[in-house]
Amino acid sequence: MNCFFMGGKLEMPEKAVVLLSGGLDSATCLAIARKEKFDVHALCFDYGQRHKIEIECARRTAAAIGVEKFHLLHFNLREWGASALTSDEFEVPEFEEIRTKVPITYVPARNMIFLSFGAALAEGIGARDIFIGVNSMDYSGYPDCRPAFIEAFRQCANLGTKAVDEKWEYKIRTPLQYLKKREIIELGLSLGVDYSLTHSCYDPGPDGRPCGHCDSCGLRNKAFAELGMTDPALSRRF
Amino acid sequence: MNCFFMGGKLEMPEKAVVLLSGGLDSATCLAIARKEKFDVHALCFDYGQRHKIEIECARRTAAAIGVEKFHLLHFNLREWGASALTSDEFEVPEFEEIRTKVPITYVPARNMIFLSFGAALAEGIGARDIFIGVNSMDYSGYPDCRPAFIEAFRQCANLGTKAVDEKWEYKIRTPLQYLKKREIIELGLSLGVDYSLTHSCYDPGPDGRPCGHCDSCGLRNKAFAELGMTDPALSRRF
Repeated sequence: MNCFFMGGKLEMPEKAVVLLSGGLDSATCLAIARKEKFDVHALCFDYGQRHKIEIECARRTAAAIGVEKFHLLHFNLREWGASALTSDEFEVPEFEEIRTKVPITYVPARNMIFLSFGAALAEGIGARDIFIGVNSMDYSGYPDCRPAFIEAFRQCANLGTKAVDEKWEYKIRTPLQYLKKREIIELGLSLGVDYSLTHSCYDPGPDGRPCGHCDSCGLRNKAFAELGMTDPALSRRF
Repeated sequence: MNCFFMGGKLEMPEKAVVLLSGGLDSATCLAIARKEKFDVHALCFDYGQRHKIEIECARRTAAAIGVEKFHLLHFNLREWGASALTSDEFEVPEFEEIRTKVPITYVPARNMIFLSFGAALAEGIGARDIFIGVNSMDYSGYPDCRPAFIEAFRQCANLGTKAVDEKWEYKIRTPLQYLKKREIIELGLSLGVDYSLTHSCYDPGPDGRPCGHCDSCGLRNKAFAELGMTDPALSRRF
């Protein structure tokens, strides 16, 4: 915990929960939460995802940016699969700039599950702010990244926890909601995020290297190219 | 899967998800879902609960009533505790008929987590109905059993999954919402539920026997007494 003096008074920082996947967006969210002086509990999930390397990236990103505690929860969404990220029945599709329907890399109800655990952790530790790196500009077609869902979740969490009895409210913080991927990277770089520690690819090779052609690689590569940069994760050493 | 002929036409039964804890209420919900001819996917959670014996009860109840599949998900809510059911820091309190605040046996956001997994499973298998045995008559003081939360969750699930894109809707089925515990037992008995297979106690002994004096035992004992019965679980042999 960080304590600091402000105007002669000892201020105790507030706690926040940051959902940290190990990807570019959630790393940026963590940096924003730290910039806002929150003591952060990072919450990461090992859910049977194809790109498990992201968990190691989340751990390193948390250590680099600084968190109060890194929580890793395990559960197995391969139990029912129904997504290319949690079942080997489906192949990860190639990058397409425009999608007209929900892609097979969508994992049923994933952000609802993640946010529910986030709400539980926040209630447990007395945090009110839950940061999640959802984004609806570089349209991924995921229903659980839309502002209407986030607002519905906020209301649901306020009703389904002690919030309503104790007269406090959750704040679901989505600082990246209306930023383009390029803008997210620019913001993160200005906050000192080391993107070489992050991983976005849905279908990495056995060595953890990005495939270069899935949706997630496509969006990421395009954004770094727009900034005249090479993705620093391409030279990742772990 | 059950197939049956109706008016000369082969009818494929619909699927439903039933959240099955191993307790009295969810066993009754399962019997109701089966009575409605659903092919049931029972979803049970090993979340680090003090009364882990309920998982074995859920498995036996599922086998006795009949399900398409029994799913058991593991995750550890002891990671942050904050409840007498998921932390040894707190003791399970004695039964009180009337509570004025949320009891320490409340597990932060538990039903939101359970329902989110239920929504994920339902989406994965193409079910629309999710049964949950919440009840607000014998008031437990749990915020996540209230009708307002259930309705908020329904809206949230419809927005945060493919439901909205594919133009279908979740139905969150709470057939016990306005029944007294005695009425739930009567209903279950009329449907053939074997309550000797169920477990409700929050604080069982090492042999899995109910403590007899926690909130959950108190409500259960009172209801069986009102019916002039002894709880059949008291003579459970496993």
